[in-house]
Amino acid sequence: MAHVNPHFQQLPGSYLFSEIARRTAAFKEANPDAPLIRMGIGDVTQPLAPAVVAAMHAAVDDLAAPESFHGYGPEQGYGFLRDAIAEHDFAARNINVSADEIFISDGAKSDCGNIGDIFSLDAKVAVCDPVYPVYVDSNAMAGRAGDWDAAAECWTNIYYMPTVPENNFVPALPDEPVDLVYLCSPNNPTGTVLSRADLEKWVRWANEHDAVILFDAAYERFVTEEDVPRSIYEIEGARTCAIEFRSFSKTAGFTGARCGYTVVPKDLVRDGQSLRDMWNRRQCTKFNGASYVIQRGAAAVYTPEGERQVEATLDVYRGNARVICEGLKRAGFSVWGGVNSPYIWCATPEGMGSWEFFDLLLNELAIVTTPGAGFGPAGEGFIRLTAFNTPEATQEAITRIQTRFA
Amino acid sequence: MAHVNPHFQQLPGSYLFSEIARRTAAFKEANPDAPLIRMGIGDVTQPLAPAVVAAMHAAVDDLAAPESFHGYGPEQGYGFLRDAIAEHDFAARNINVSADEIFISDGAKSDCGNIGDIFSLDAKVAVCDPVYPVYVDSNAMAGRAGDWDAAAECWTNIYYMPTVPENNFVPALPDEPVDLVYLCSPNNPTGTVLSRADLEKWVRWANEHDAVILFDAAYERFVTEEDVPRSIYEIEGARTCAIEFRSFSKTAGFTGARCGYTVVPKDLVRDGQSLRDMWNRRQCTKFNGASYVIQRGAAAVYTPEGERQVEATLDVYRGNARVICEGLKRAGFSVWGGVNSPYIWCATPEGMGSWEFFDLLLNELAIVTTPGAGFGPAGEGFIRLTAFNTPEATQEAITRIQTRFA
Repeated sequence: MAHVNPHFQQLPGSYLFSEIARRTAAFKEANPDAPLIRMGIGDVTQPLAPAVVAAMHAAVDDLAAPESFHGYGPEQGYGFLRDAIAEHDFAARNINVSADEIFISDGAKSDCGNIGDIFSLDAKVAVCDPVYPVYVDSNAMAGRAGDWDAAAECWTNIYYMPTVPENNFVPALPDEPVDLVYLCSPNNPTGTVLSRADLEKWVRWANEHDAVILFDAAYERFVTEEDVPRSIYEIEGARTCAIEFRSFSKTAGFTGARCGYTVVPKDLVRDGQSLRDMWNRRQCTKFNGASYVIQRGAAAVYTPEGERQVEATLDVYRGNARVICEGLKRAGFSVWGGVNSPYIWCATPEGMGSWEFFDLLLNELAIVTTPGAGFGPAGEGFIRLTAFNTPEATQEAITRIQTRFA
Repeated sequence: MAHVNPHFQQLPGSYLFSEIARRTAAFKEANPDAPLIRMGIGDVTQPLAPAVVAAMHAAVDDLAAPESFHGYGPEQGYGFLRDAIAEHDFAARNINVSADEIFISDGAKSDCGNIGDIFSLDAKVAVCDPVYPVYVDSNAMAGRAGDWDAAAECWTNIYYMPTVPENNFVPALPDEPVDLVYLCSPNNPTGTVLSRADLEKWVRWANEHDAVILFDAAYERFVTEEDVPRSIYEIEGARTCAIEFRSFSKTAGFTGARCGYTVVPKDLVRDGQSLRDMWNRRQCTKFNGASYVIQRGAAAVYTPEGERQVEATLDVYRGNARVICEGLKRAGFSVWGGVNSPYIWCATPEGMGSWEFFDLLLNELAIVTTPGAGFGPAGEGFIRLTAFNTPEATQEAITRIQTRFA
């Protein structure tokens, strides 16, 4: 008699984006001609860079002829991509990460979700609140989260670290034993960052406690400020306590193409085991490598033209973020993020809940955002706006908000 | 203090293909001019079908322009591909599987490896011996396999079902309680198949015992005989007891492009939970959909030109399989498989171990095969040959064997 994984039954419905979609659809039905502007979901809108497109076409042609055909590739990813990453994302920035510590995948969400495979099931997990739901849900599925407390909207065995204006969105070090800590900087959803000093504090703490930091750097290419590390390995000591997740999704428009990578340093050892070797074994057993076509496209991001084209697209999003930040501030709102991030975290007007403000923006201004409460209890009182629309739509949305709240 | 998953430490090294590579490299170094023929690894050699290539190029172009750009796709796969599969792989063959029971992925290996996420950790697992190692290793990592018994080369808590000439390679029904049963037909590595009557027996048993069959149909397109089901859902009752894995790897040359799918019927319920809904939740949480480019390519397999071109390539491999089968028989060997499969299972000469025969073929004839012992204890005394080389190389290999063993 086959029994199911009992931990799935406690998962609360993931209603956030479906509820947003439902309310948006209802609005559109009632107002078919309203010029809707979507600033809710964190998906890119600009096309792939021409250098990436050319590389993908060439790779498809490789698969079209017997002499250039590629069958099974290395589970860890092709050398041409691992080497390019090691050189451009790390060596060029004086960061010590070698190609054989880099594991290419079909995206950071897969890696964030699967990394738990290499850890003990009784590991105590810490996350920020608000938080990207994958960290929590994947651990809940594995049984690490305890029970779902519907009233408090939290899991009994997860250690939550509120990140709010009062602490400048920097999580405090845990005051009880914690084994795995998810940190995301630049942060989804708040758009805030951890400074060099913040990360030094966390790395010191993790090494002292033999904890492991799971560092999500999916948005690192949006960092513009000097003092903000783009990789946790810029911090001394991180190689013995941190795993880092990277993505081509937001940096190079790969949300639909799918490619990311994970760094597991050889110096990271727990219980006498190399976590790099464990992740390698996990990937070799349960993954068969990312698509050759897509890896070739990702490698083109590191060519001179690719770099230039990708930066030009990022500048569009960075410009949008600036427009949103400054526009909301001028309209009297308190906002965070947007400087080193495509996300802007905006406090709701006094006394207004995040779903209430979401509804106001949708129904009065035809703007779709994301209510902060969807990311956790400490997200209540905020909404998230994204910089991934066109400059024209972004400017129009901000004009509408400024007019309404002038 | 973070602890690792303790079950990884018991995993024996996966030495099979690396040991083959090592011995092959040593041979090549000693014999740089020897005309090596590779019939070991199960990887395709023929290029993608022109219809698939054209669809991938068009999809890359979609990603190159803002109006046709595709960002995040559905985690379950695009409707255009799920619908094409439902129509061509199932409805056209009078098999009851609907599009919303089909989950597109980056390959069957990922799905076979990840499916355990939805089952209880104390499920008792049954596998055939010899066996595709992913079934065993993924369960060992999850802690379902017990301890590794190095002397017996088996896990203490896995139920092994020998498939050998004596039982015509049909596993006997378990004589003790078993919850999850992996069946692979056409089989890797033996190349043998389960008949309709065999599968009816298994489906009846699974329904009677509330067990779940994990049916790996990655090689179904190689089935040529009438009485051999290409899907377990051809069997009445399978919708309440079976999950099926499919792949575009061998059928359409996608080993490097990466695409597969898994069918979880809505009628499959255990502990009152829909396994389809659980798998959907697992994929939504830990996967972000297969690449748009690759899904477009996979959909082209179902166009009239795609079907015709794919069949033409499959005919090359089918022809190779026939040449290997008949050639080995004429040389006096006992062989199985090859009729409904790209794999040929060949008994070693009297008294010769599978590594010994591997070495003989490599060192005397410059032919690379796979020793059966690498797939489990019951694989000792056999080697596996694959039909994925060119017709010329395949014929040449068989000629060498016939000359040597005439």
